[in-house]
Amino acid sequence: MKNTLLVCLFLLPSVLLAQTKSNSLKINQQRILTRLLELSKFGELPNGGIGRVAYSKADLEGRAYFIGLMKKAGLAVTIDYAGNIIGRRKGKNPTLKPIAFGSHIDSVPNGGNYDGPVGSISGLELIETLNENNIVTEHPLELIIFANEEGGTVGSGAMIGKITTAALKLVTQSGLTIADGIRTIGGNPDSLSRVVRKKGDVAAFVELHIEQGGILMTENLQIGVVEGIVGIEHWDATIIGTPNHAGTTPMNARRDALLAAAKLVVALNEVVTSHEGRQVGTVGKLIVEPGAYNVIPGKVVLGVEIRDLSHDKIWQLFHELEAKARDIAKTSETTITFVPSSVGVTPALTAKPIQNKIIGAAKALGFSYRYMQSGAGHDAQEMAQIAPVGMIFIPSVGGISHSPKEFSKGVDIGNGANVLLQTLLALDRE
Amino acid sequence: MKNTLLVCLFLLPSVLLAQTKSNSLKINQQRILTRLLELSKFGELPNGGIGRVAYSKADLEGRAYFIGLMKKAGLAVTIDYAGNIIGRRKGKNPTLKPIAFGSHIDSVPNGGNYDGPVGSISGLELIETLNENNIVTEHPLELIIFANEEGGTVGSGAMIGKITTAALKLVTQSGLTIADGIRTIGGNPDSLSRVVRKKGDVAAFVELHIEQGGILMTENLQIGVVEGIVGIEHWDATIIGTPNHAGTTPMNARRDALLAAAKLVVALNEVVTSHEGRQVGTVGKLIVEPGAYNVIPGKVVLGVEIRDLSHDKIWQLFHELEAKARDIAKTSETTITFVPSSVGVTPALTAKPIQNKIIGAAKALGFSYRYMQSGAGHDAQEMAQIAPVGMIFIPSVGGISHSPKEFSKGVDIGNGANVLLQTLLALDRE
Repeated sequence: MKNTLLVCLFLLPSVLLAQTKSNSLKINQQRILTRLLELSKFGELPNGGIGRVAYSKADLEGRAYFIGLMKKAGLAVTIDYAGNIIGRRKGKNPTLKPIAFGSHIDSVPNGGNYDGPVGSISGLELIETLNENNIVTEHPLELIIFANEEGGTVGSGAMIGKITTAALKLVTQSGLTIADGIRTIGGNPDSLSRVVRKKGDVAAFVELHIEQGGILMTENLQIGVVEGIVGIEHWDATIIGTPNHAGTTPMNARRDALLAAAKLVVALNEVVTSHEGRQVGTVGKLIVEPGAYNVIPGKVVLGVEIRDLSHDKIWQLFHELEAKARDIAKTSETTITFVPSSVGVTPALTAKPIQNKIIGAAKALGFSYRYMQSGAGHDAQEMAQIAPVGMIFIPSVGGISHSPKEFSKGVDIGNGANVLLQTLLALDRE
Repeated sequence: MKNTLLVCLFLLPSVLLAQTKSNSLKINQQRILTRLLELSKFGELPNGGIGRVAYSKADLEGRAYFIGLMKKAGLAVTIDYAGNIIGRRKGKNPTLKPIAFGSHIDSVPNGGNYDGPVGSISGLELIETLNENNIVTEHPLELIIFANEEGGTVGSGAMIGKITTAALKLVTQSGLTIADGIRTIGGNPDSLSRVVRKKGDVAAFVELHIEQGGILMTENLQIGVVEGIVGIEHWDATIIGTPNHAGTTPMNARRDALLAAAKLVVALNEVVTSHEGRQVGTVGKLIVEPGAYNVIPGKVVLGVEIRDLSHDKIWQLFHELEAKARDIAKTSETTITFVPSSVGVTPALTAKPIQNKIIGAAKALGFSYRYMQSGAGHDAQEMAQIAPVGMIFIPSVGGISHSPKEFSKGVDIGNGANVLLQTLLALDRE
């Protein structure tokens, strides 16, 4: 027993020392902010926004800048066939699967500089913090900058094998098809099958991201622990009435497609807000035909979107909307038909053990936090199909995103990067 | 006394004979239908509709065809500086002002062959019927084919002096400006002041037209006696909310411009239908920005139109809508502003004595009739500013107009032409 104790006393300090050392590790917040500023120059717009859509000149320049930083940080950088930038750092144990983290650096057309870059640059910062402290993790590490996230998580989608040949022909915001865009950034659309990873190929994937909503700011909290990324379904609703002369057709003889559409917009809001929970429903587009002051609208096409963490709840809400639509069609003497407008996005739940490590890191660092869902789609949503994933949110000022007004405070970004670092180290210790 | 009686007996037959002769006059319905068919060839579309917009090649051809018929009927034809075609027939009494009648032969882009041509060709038919029966009226007669009715009653507007120099620069459906269009059809936009007629220059103006609504057909009536032509006001309503991510913005944190707009569309319908009367209110156009499934609309611009015979009632309804808009803006945290989008059209009442003559004619011919208002604008509306006017409606099948499906039955057209003839003869006898 004495001997055992001695051995233990002998062994403990080295483990404790390593853990204490890594627990006290801190990222360099100023370096992150400097790099965010440098990256913002690629695709900077006169209004202060960012136009760095995937496959554009600004995207190519931003990627070149980022690859340079990754190489300087000692990462072994490769571009996979989908155009994803992958930086590898060796671990002590080559038999372990890599722990992956990262985000994206492409933007929406008139977007901001935080959606994507915060997670990407913080991931790089983590590597440099480990370098500067001579820490080598057990697992290999992979910093992944996914290609074309904003155009439909194309890079991460390719990594789980879900990009169809039809999708490759879609024209992106850059003006190029996805196939040509992938070629432009050094990939090869004909070899996408070779970038597919299987379940188990990645030990874990963790993404740090801005919230893009206003919950953390409103509640004055520092960290969001994402429980899951909501599923998304879209439908096109077509309302057919009778186009007619707005002067000569009495009110009681009209079949007004826009009046019926307006009631449908209100009905969706009623359906979605009449249930407990965090589901959202939106009519974001609506087109009226023929569209003149003096013609009663004969046709309206509108886009319905419903998001929730539960696939069943999305469809339950939709069926309630359908029932209301039947009533509206009847009283307005119009017809209303719904057609799913694209393959829906399945909800993705994050891994409970990673949630717990994020919470552990936040607590250890003294940060306030709450569970939340992600209303937006992310690369982590795709990665959830092949690996346990985690997601860390930091506050978005005013809850604004996909806008030149998108902004997160430096201190919040630094907090998020430290939580990411501690979460990954905790995962590595497992 | 005996002598007086003798004189009376001697005089009466000649008056009675003339009146009896004209009372039994009948137009040639088949000739009207043949000419409608012939006119429909100019601008005929593959879908059966008519594309004879003012100043177009089809319009020029249709006008040439019509001028030929007018000349063949012995009318002295002139084109005034606005491009109106005026055919004059002398009366017995050169000191009397002319009785005018007519309509237009231009169409909307994808219109029908009855809106305008029915009144124009029936007017010509009336001349030929008088010719064939050797009847010379007391008043001079003027058959007027107004230029560019569908583009904003330009020809009749010129006749009352309301065409502005700004309006002359507007581009019409033909691709030409109004000024260039007027030149194309033989007018001169620089001399429009010379076509202006003063109050009293015309003894009366009567227009026969299709109803363009479904009231006569629904009630199975033959003749509509138009009490007035409604005034029209247009407003652009702009609703400003906050464009935001449709996934990350909770339902209770939205400022959704489309949801507010939808409530405004419903509110207009409620306001207009909550009052007795024949007023109509329409939202015919609505544009959403940015207009994507996944973005909460930040801006909506929609067009509000209200029509009624009473100018005051139009504005009363609008003020009720404004009050509802204030409530909607408050609860949705949006702003809603209204801007009148063009100079409104003032309501025009027809002359009671002419209404009575139309009713007298309808009764004498055994036709059922009702009073009604015209929801559409017409050349008669402009002419009402300088002369007593009357308007005769005939049924539109299905109430459809401004459409290839626009149609009126031959027998109804013939009835209308006979009522027009008898109305004009009665006016002439005054």
